[in-house]
Amino acid sequence: MVDEPARDPMPEETLTDAQRLGLDAELEHRIVDALEADDSAGVRELVAPLHYADIADLLEHLAGDDRRKLIAIIGEDFHADVLSELDEAVRDNVIDDLEVEDLAAVVSELDTDDAVDIIEELDEEEQLQVLEAIPAGDRTLIEEALTYPEDSAGRLMQREVVTVPTFWTVGEAIDFLRASADEDSLPEAFYDIFVVDPMHRPVGAISLSGVLRTRRPVPVSEIMDPEMKLIPVAMDQEEVAFLFRQRDLVSAPVVGDGGRLVGAITIDDVVDVIDEEHEEDIMRMAGVQEDDLYSAVLATTRSRFTWLLVNLGTAVLASVVIGLFQGTIEQMVALAVLMPIVASMGGNAGTQTLTVAVRGLATREITPTNALRVMGKELLVGGINGLLFAVITGLVAWLWFSSPLLGVVIGLAMIANLLVAALSGSLTPLVLDRLRIDPAVGSSVILTTVTDVVGFFVFLALGAWLLL
Amino acid sequence: MVDEPARDPMPEETLTDAQRLGLDAELEHRIVDALEADDSAGVRELVAPLHYADIADLLEHLAGDDRRKLIAIIGEDFHADVLSELDEAVRDNVIDDLEVEDLAAVVSELDTDDAVDIIEELDEEEQLQVLEAIPAGDRTLIEEALTYPEDSAGRLMQREVVTVPTFWTVGEAIDFLRASADEDSLPEAFYDIFVVDPMHRPVGAISLSGVLRTRRPVPVSEIMDPEMKLIPVAMDQEEVAFLFRQRDLVSAPVVGDGGRLVGAITIDDVVDVIDEEHEEDIMRMAGVQEDDLYSAVLATTRSRFTWLLVNLGTAVLASVVIGLFQGTIEQMVALAVLMPIVASMGGNAGTQTLTVAVRGLATREITPTNALRVMGKELLVGGINGLLFAVITGLVAWLWFSSPLLGVVIGLAMIANLLVAALSGSLTPLVLDRLRIDPAVGSSVILTTVTDVVGFFVFLALGAWLLL
Repeated sequence: MVDEPARDPMPEETLTDAQRLGLDAELEHRIVDALEADDSAGVRELVAPLHYADIADLLEHLAGDDRRKLIAIIGEDFHADVLSELDEAVRDNVIDDLEVEDLAAVVSELDTDDAVDIIEELDEEEQLQVLEAIPAGDRTLIEEALTYPEDSAGRLMQREVVTVPTFWTVGEAIDFLRASADEDSLPEAFYDIFVVDPMHRPVGAISLSGVLRTRRPVPVSEIMDPEMKLIPVAMDQEEVAFLFRQRDLVSAPVVGDGGRLVGAITIDDVVDVIDEEHEEDIMRMAGVQEDDLYSAVLATTRSRFTWLLVNLGTAVLASVVIGLFQGTIEQMVALAVLMPIVASMGGNAGTQTLTVAVRGLATREITPTNALRVMGKELLVGGINGLLFAVITGLVAWLWFSSPLLGVVIGLAMIANLLVAALSGSLTPLVLDRLRIDPAVGSSVILTTVTDVVGFFVFLALGAWLLL
Repeated sequence: MVDEPARDPMPEETLTDAQRLGLDAELEHRIVDALEADDSAGVRELVAPLHYADIADLLEHLAGDDRRKLIAIIGEDFHADVLSELDEAVRDNVIDDLEVEDLAAVVSELDTDDAVDIIEELDEEEQLQVLEAIPAGDRTLIEEALTYPEDSAGRLMQREVVTVPTFWTVGEAIDFLRASADEDSLPEAFYDIFVVDPMHRPVGAISLSGVLRTRRPVPVSEIMDPEMKLIPVAMDQEEVAFLFRQRDLVSAPVVGDGGRLVGAITIDDVVDVIDEEHEEDIMRMAGVQEDDLYSAVLATTRSRFTWLLVNLGTAVLASVVIGLFQGTIEQMVALAVLMPIVASMGGNAGTQTLTVAVRGLATREITPTNALRVMGKELLVGGINGLLFAVITGLVAWLWFSSPLLGVVIGLAMIANLLVAALSGSLTPLVLDRLRIDPAVGSSVILTTVTDVVGFFVFLALGAWLLL
C-alpha cells in the first residue's frame, strides 16, 4: 500500500476521466446514496462513464436490494462483458434477475469461452432455455464446448481462431485478415495466427508482431514457430496455467482428436484461472469455500460448519489425550497451565512447513527430485528451532514455577513436537499429493491433530514420569 | 489433479519432443544421475532439447553441488532467459557462480525490464561491475530504470515501445514496423502500438490485431482507442496488476513527467507480479518468507524463529490466563481436559473469517461500501455456528463427565468465543488495512491471541462461577 501522492506523481488534470481508476470509494458512496434515494437519473449519470469492469466491481460491492435496483436502472444497456467479469456467486444472483431473452441476448454477444463460462453455471432447464434463444451457429459452438469436462482446456478456449494454410504468404494472410474483419468473423481479441495443414492440424504459430514485422512476399511457413505448445482439449486448466506461465505465452492452440485445431486459449482466461487456483489454495487451507464472500449467510454457515466439525473431532481427540493424565494434572496443576504452549508452538511451526510444502507443490517447485531434500531441511530447521525454544520455554517454566525439572520437561516436549511438526508438515502434503488428493484441503487438519496429540501427550507423559 | 490418460487424450506420438512438457521426473532423474557420474557429454545431450524455462526449473530442483556442475557444463551456452526465469534465491546463487563478464553478456541480451529485474538483485559493487561491462545505450536505459522505486511500474516496464505519430495511416505504421524489424529495433514481444502527440504523450493505443484488420489508407487516429489506461511510472506494481486483471489488458503505456510515454508493461511481467503477490499472501499468513523454499537452513531457521517467538508470546499469555484459575482446575480437573476445545474452535472459526477478509482486501472485493455488511454477516455466521457447536460440545461434555452444568458452561463459552472470533477475524484485517499495514502479516497472531485468551478465560471463569 503506497499513499496517494507517491502513487501518482502525474498531475491529475492530465488524465481524462476514463483514464483514472474508474471506481473509488467516494463515487461508490454517491451511487449508493442515489440508489437509496431512488434517483434513477442520478444513478444513470454516475454510472454512464464507468468501464464494464468497474460496473461489475460495483455490483459485487452492493447489497442485494441496491444491486437489483441498479440492474433495473441499467436495464437494456446491460453490457455482456459486465456479466463475465462478475464473481460467480454474484453472477448467479444477477442472472436470476435477468429475463431469459435478455440473458440469451447478452450471451450471444460474447466469444464462446465467455459464453460457456456463464452458461455452465446455469441449471439444466435454464441452460436449455438460454441455448434455444441463441442463434444456431453460436449455439452449436457453445453446446460443443459444454461437452468438454469442467475445468478443462475445452471450456477455457475460444472457438474463434485465425488460421492460414501453409502455402500462403504474409501478404495473403494480411489480406485475409482485412477481408474477415469486413465480414466481422474475427475473434474479439487474438495475438497469434496459426498455420494449419490440410487436415486442419496446427503446424506453426505466428505472433501478430511477427506478421507485422515481415514483408508481404515472405511465406508464412518461413516465419512461423513450429515448436509452439499444443494444448490437448481435455488438459486440466491448472496444467494450462502452468504452461502459460512457464513459457510466457499469450495464446496457444488447442487440439482435439487427431491433433486437429479446435480453438485457442488466450492469456486473459489464464489469468482468471491463476487467480481462481490461488483463491482455492488459500481458502481451502482455512476450510472456506471459494465464493464464501458473496454466499448467503446460511450457505456460508453450512459450509464452514463442516470444517469446524472435523476440527472439533481433532480437538476432542486432544482432550481425550489430556484426559489420560487427569491424575497427573490433579497432582501438579502447573502442567495444565503450560500444556497449551507446547501444542500451539507445534501447530505454528508445522503450519510454516505445511505452507511452504503446499505452495511448492502447487507451483511444481517441489518434485520427486528435491522432495527428500526439502523434508531433510525442514527437519533440520525444526530441530534447531526446537532446541532454541526448548531453552526459552524451559527458562520461562523454571522461573514461573520455580521448578528446574518442569523446565526440562517442557524443553524436551518442545524439541519432540517441533520435530514432529516438521515431519508431519512436510510429509502430509507430499503423501496427499501422491494420492492425488489436494494437499491444501486435508493437510492442516491432519497437522493440527498430530501436533496437538503429540504435544499434549509427550509433555504430560514426561511430566508424569519425571515430576511425580 | 487428473490422472495421466484423462489429461492427454491425444496419442503421444502425434506430439514432437518440444511440444511435450519438456521436463518430467524421469528425465530429471537421468540428468541427476549423469551429473553425479560427472558424465558431461551425457548431461549436455539430455539438456540440449530443453526449453530455457525447463532448464530454469531444473536448476531450481537441483541440490547446490549438482547445480554448480550443470552451470559449468552449460557454460557459454547459458541462455539469458534462463536467468530471468529463475526464482530469486536460486538466481542469487547462480549469479555468484557466473563471471562478471558472462553475467554482463547475458544481461545485455535481455529487454530492459528483464535486465533490471536481475541487476536490482545485485549488491552495489556487482551492479557497477556489470553495468560497466554493458554497451552504453543499454546501460543508460537500465540505469534510468533503476532510479524508479522498487516494485513500481518503472521497474516493471520495458523501455522498447513502438510509437507512431497521430497523422500516420495504418499503411505507414506497417511500413515503419517492417523497416524497424530490418534494423532490429523492435521490442522482443509487443501487442499494442501507441499513437503519440508531438510532445511524445500517448493519445491512443492500437492492438496489433486492430492494425491487421484495417486497410492501409485508414488513419491510425481513426482506429486507436483514446481511452487506454495510462500507467504513471511510480504506480505500485500491485496497482498495475489490479488494472491489468480488471481490464483484461495485455499491454499498457507507462507515462512519466508531463504525461510523456516512457515505456510499456506487458502481461507476462504482470503474471509474474500476480504470482509474487499470491506467494506473499499465502506465505505471510503463515509467517514464512517468500523465498523460504530455496533459502539456506540457517536463514530459514532465523526468519521462522521470529514468527514463532511472537507466537510464543501469545501462548504464554494464554497460559497466564489459565494460571489465574489454578485453584479452579485443581478442584475440577475436567475443566483442564476440555479447555483446549473452546480455544481451538475459536481459532479455527476465526481463521475462516480472517482468510475471507484478507483475501477480499487483497482483491479489493471488500471496500468501505461493503465492509460493515461483511462484518455483520460474519457475526451472524459465527453466532449460528456458535449455537450449533454449543449444543454439540455441551452434549459431549455432559455425557463424558456426567455433568449437565459442565455442558452448559462449555456451550456458553463456545458461543462467546465464536462471536469474538468472527469479530476479531473481520475487524483486525480491516483495521490493519486502514492503518496501511499488510493485513496478511499481523492478523493471524492477533486473532489467535484473542481467541485463546477469550476462550480460556470465559470457559474457566464460567466454570469457577457455575460449577464450584
